Amino acid sequence: MLGFLQRFFSKDKAFYQSIKNLLGFYPNNIVFYQKAFRHKSVATKDHDSNERLEYLGDAVFGAIIAHYLYQRFPYKDEGFLTQMRSKLVNRSHLNSLSRKMGLDNMIQYYNESASGYKSLHGDAFEALIGAIYLDKGFNFTQNFIINHIIKLHIDIDHFVNTEFDYKSKLLNWAQKEKKQLRFDTKEEVLKNNDRKFTVTLFINEKEISTGIDFSKKKAEQQAAQKAFSQFVQ
Amino acid sequence: MLGFLQRFFSKDKAFYQSIKNLLGFYPNNIVFYQKAFRHKSVATKDHDSNERLEYLGDAVFGAIIAHYLYQRFPYKDEGFLTQMRSKLVNRSHLNSLSRKMGLDNMIQYYNESASGYKSLHGDAFEALIGAIYLDKGFNFTQNFIINHIIKLHIDIDHFVNTEFDYKSKLLNWAQKEKKQLRFDTKEEVLKNNDRKFTVTLFINEKEISTGIDFSKKKAEQQAAQKAFSQFVQ
Repeated sequence: MLGFLQRFFSKDKAFYQSIKNLLGFYPNNIVFYQKAFRHKSVATKDHDSNERLEYLGDAVFGAIIAHYLYQRFPYKDEGFLTQMRSKLVNRSHLNSLSRKMGLDNMIQYYNESASGYKSLHGDAFEALIGAIYLDKGFNFTQNFIINHIIKLHIDIDHFVNTEFDYKSKLLNWAQKEKKQLRFDTKEEVLKNNDRKFTVTLFINEKEISTGIDFSKKKAEQQAAQKAFSQFVQ
Repeated sequence: MLGFLQRFFSKDKAFYQSIKNLLGFYPNNIVFYQKAFRHKSVATKDHDSNERLEYLGDAVFGAIIAHYLYQRFPYKDEGFLTQMRSKLVNRSHLNSLSRKMGLDNMIQYYNESASGYKSLHGDAFEALIGAIYLDKGFNFTQNFIINHIIKLHIDIDHFVNTEFDYKSKLLNWAQKEKKQLRFDTKEEVLKNNDRKFTVTLFINEKEISTGIDFSKKKAEQQAAQKAFSQFVQ
């Protein structure tokens, strides 16, 4: 009842309503949600931006996705689960989720420099998860993510079938940006006859990253992934 | 009542009791806990080892620690919180937590190859968190971690004051193992006059890892951390 009164006699009535329209529920404490949408470029005080909520939401979203995949794929090993989770929580997927959910219009940021904020949308998405978690608790957040995010916006089967191929993505990027890529592979035979591959990735002949694995392909992907998160994402 | 009957008339009565002695509560479903302590070296079937629980527990522990630090340090920024979390969840800290909690005696593994399992204890710790979470839910797990792990076994202030210095740890390791370390630093001046450092770490003149940052010290730590997790942890 108090919540009802607050909601309808508050100067923030419009904000309550827009959260309801966006997420399907009324918040208890709107301060969390207001903060979730406040990019640091418009925060007036320290700790008044969404950065701390983003840190929290990232961890909570990771745990909920981990559990969801654990249940959805009872016969898959932890390598598969870990890889699926990385695909779902990577920055470019979060940016796209944020847009699909329509968070764009809610985010407050300083316009002039917006083009420099590559992760503006994904960060706000994570901060919003942090806000829901603090406002409503873990179980509510888990239900919300499953019913309002995964079911509506994530095609899990698509992710199962798509290898997130960092090397190909990086090659596409390099072609577009007219950069030259080179993968250098060193192979080492270990005592037990396993072979270890060290792949070093150069962009325009500058060494960028290294991947090490018993499989050459995985070592390449590892090196490509590191470069991808630095340059493309 | 059913739980009580199961507990006292079950062939697993001793296991129920040992979980109670170890953790302070009786499990609802002991299957989760039995699996949590089963290293893959003794698992007879696929998915019968603790690896999937470890994947889940890692994510759940991460979220609970993230929230704990968020509340404990209301005026710290997300950089501080992220760094603190890394210190608490890194493999060597989890190995040590696992020993402090006395999980050693519970873990089942194939003895002959035990010296090769550097993360046996930390993995079982994470798997146990996954088991508690599946058995008892998030809120119970959160209370357990705060009251039975953090309060008893983690000196948070110690972690605040201790920089986790991977370079020093690696230098210590190298001296002990008689390995030769070399850090190669390349400096690049960017368009906006920022300087970017690329530090490449060699062990016995073999290139191992790379760190890139605007601070030379951070780039070194990054390279050292990658090597640390490969060789030392």
